[in-house]
Amino acid sequence: MSNQVKNIAILGSTGSIGTQTLDVIRWNSNLFKAFLLTAHSNADLLISQAIEFVPEYAIICNQSKYQEVKEALAHLPIQVLAGHQAIIDTVTHPEIAIVLTAMVGFAGLEPTIAAIKAGKDIALANKETLVVAGDIITALAKQNGVQILPVDSEHSAIFQSLVGEEYKSIEKLIITASGGPFRGRGLDFLANVTREDALKHPNWVMGAKITIDSASLMNKGLEVIEAKWLFDVEADQIEVVVHPQSIIHSLVQFRDGSIKAQLGLPDMKLPIQYALTYPNRIETNFKRFSFTDYPNLTFEKPDMETFRNLSLAYAALKQGGNMPCIINAANEIAVAGFLDRRIGFLTMSGIIEECMQKINFIANPTLTDYLNTDKETRIFAQNYIQQLPSKTLQF
Amino acid sequence: MSNQVKNIAILGSTGSIGTQTLDVIRWNSNLFKAFLLTAHSNADLLISQAIEFVPEYAIICNQSKYQEVKEALAHLPIQVLAGHQAIIDTVTHPEIAIVLTAMVGFAGLEPTIAAIKAGKDIALANKETLVVAGDIITALAKQNGVQILPVDSEHSAIFQSLVGEEYKSIEKLIITASGGPFRGRGLDFLANVTREDALKHPNWVMGAKITIDSASLMNKGLEVIEAKWLFDVEADQIEVVVHPQSIIHSLVQFRDGSIKAQLGLPDMKLPIQYALTYPNRIETNFKRFSFTDYPNLTFEKPDMETFRNLSLAYAALKQGGNMPCIINAANEIAVAGFLDRRIGFLTMSGIIEECMQKINFIANPTLTDYLNTDKETRIFAQNYIQQLPSKTLQF
Repeated sequence: MSNQVKNIAILGSTGSIGTQTLDVIRWNSNLFKAFLLTAHSNADLLISQAIEFVPEYAIICNQSKYQEVKEALAHLPIQVLAGHQAIIDTVTHPEIAIVLTAMVGFAGLEPTIAAIKAGKDIALANKETLVVAGDIITALAKQNGVQILPVDSEHSAIFQSLVGEEYKSIEKLIITASGGPFRGRGLDFLANVTREDALKHPNWVMGAKITIDSASLMNKGLEVIEAKWLFDVEADQIEVVVHPQSIIHSLVQFRDGSIKAQLGLPDMKLPIQYALTYPNRIETNFKRFSFTDYPNLTFEKPDMETFRNLSLAYAALKQGGNMPCIINAANEIAVAGFLDRRIGFLTMSGIIEECMQKINFIANPTLTDYLNTDKETRIFAQNYIQQLPSKTLQF
Repeated sequence: MSNQVKNIAILGSTGSIGTQTLDVIRWNSNLFKAFLLTAHSNADLLISQAIEFVPEYAIICNQSKYQEVKEALAHLPIQVLAGHQAIIDTVTHPEIAIVLTAMVGFAGLEPTIAAIKAGKDIALANKETLVVAGDIITALAKQNGVQILPVDSEHSAIFQSLVGEEYKSIEKLIITASGGPFRGRGLDFLANVTREDALKHPNWVMGAKITIDSASLMNKGLEVIEAKWLFDVEADQIEVVVHPQSIIHSLVQFRDGSIKAQLGLPDMKLPIQYALTYPNRIETNFKRFSFTDYPNLTFEKPDMETFRNLSLAYAALKQGGNMPCIINAANEIAVAGFLDRRIGFLTMSGIIEECMQKINFIANPTLTDYLNTDKETRIFAQNYIQQLPSKTLQF
């Protein structure tokens, strides 16, 4: 029945989350339609996705690829647009029900704000949006009666554990972390790891930026900040526990002492689908978890002295203001520098800390302040990397 | 505010669940009042409970203890009654909000039915009620708009995991079992265990009957049957997994593949309190669970060939009719025989199986049929034990 079909806008359709979202839509075409697809610069994949799903809109951020996409889709009833502003303008389309934000990094902020202002529910995979400007986003969502449905597996686990519960009953959130490929390693080891080492995540197949963030535990730090905004808790109510098997995706401890958890095999399609079907659940043929395959689930404390990014994220959350925005921007530059082999693994934390100390702190930032902080931090971090002595450039 | 105080009837106040329920009431006297207390025959404890809580009614089942209780409480405004029928008559009192059924075994059936007919919500700790006559009880509860709030830790875990979810989304229930004191043991070992061995439960402190049931896995079998009725699922949707640490209390797998679980330290006060406060949660100072204390959670399949009671319970559930009533009655007699050192540990399964074969099967029993089946089975099982050759009487 076509009147039950939800139109979905996928911001970042060519990334890991985007393609898996299209898998979910493909298998449930009676429920969902891909209405708007955007890609940063992967024109080839955007074209093939658009040919398969025939969305109303296909938007390529990188303007230099516009002609290529336009021509490839000329025979189809698809509006092809280009540029960041085109995304901001079209996510407000009245026929869109849910905007799934799977862009990488800070770029998700403005389209998400536009979508919320237009009353669209947000399936949030772009955690940086909440890290950078959680206060503004959550206030806007409240004002506009918009639901923010987490897609991150950890936050989806918490969200699922909270269905039917009162948020004021939350005593503590326990976010699990696989520990990444370098769990148990010391500083000597980390000083010499390569881009290739860091991209080998033990449990999850994800994009490059988030995989590096997972290896450095910055991803967990960003998730702690994201959780604060999604679930209205304070930093000291959020605990991180390392769980190498990635089966228990996260937990909620309530004020009566009871703990609820969501678990399953690591597969992003489940939280993606749940965000789209919430509050309902629909049948899937995803592989089922069995304790027979996982007879031991193990847990340990994160090593926050070696993996300093997690401590820095907690510190930024406690300081508040534009500090989470600063660490996010610094981290994006640091990760890019590491992926480009311009800096070493441990230098990433150094850059973030340097930015935290040097960038102007603003206790009650406006959206403009966040945009400026982001720019200022990126420039500072870029310059910092360029000025590093060449001995750190061995990677 | 006295108009918010819920009056609680505790059937079986002197047992393990009963005394812990009174702990919860003691700590939350602003929310709950012990309105009716009943004991089987522990007059001393009933008297001291009545002196502390001053309920409207104190009922001693064993009539020979009536005078003793009556005299001890003569100075207090408490109506002292005696006998099973007095319980059935008083649980319907208009001022009672919740009836917590913590009697042992089949004896809980009739008072529970009376309470449901009077529209009382049931906090169900007496699993035998549902095992014996789950069809009648659940139909009656539906008719009378009555909630059955499970107190068993496993069923409370499932119930908590289902808050806000649709029952039709359940794909599978996974009930955890500690495995009891004889986990991993073979038949040779079990043939010679004593009453004392069997009463040593590794994680839970409970009454004698349920502790023996835990050692024989019959408790888990009864829980499987209970789960069928509480959550409207079939036998093949219920899996038992052995989890020796008793931290994950049970799990629900939904049709999208997602699994939710409730966990915590083994402490019956939490599920008791939750049944009384549902759908709310109130603060407690119960000791909190920490992964630091439990860095390894382990899981294994139950050995249903050695611990035959669990297989027998599944078989009874699949056969339906009065078969679960038969195994329950046979088990009550068998456990009593084992506790009296009249039969060995393994003989318990033999008695149950014999009853399953010999007692008249009724596909669609009435309540009278259940009452008759129960009596008939008890007599048969008693006789069976008496006719056993003396070589099995070595315990």
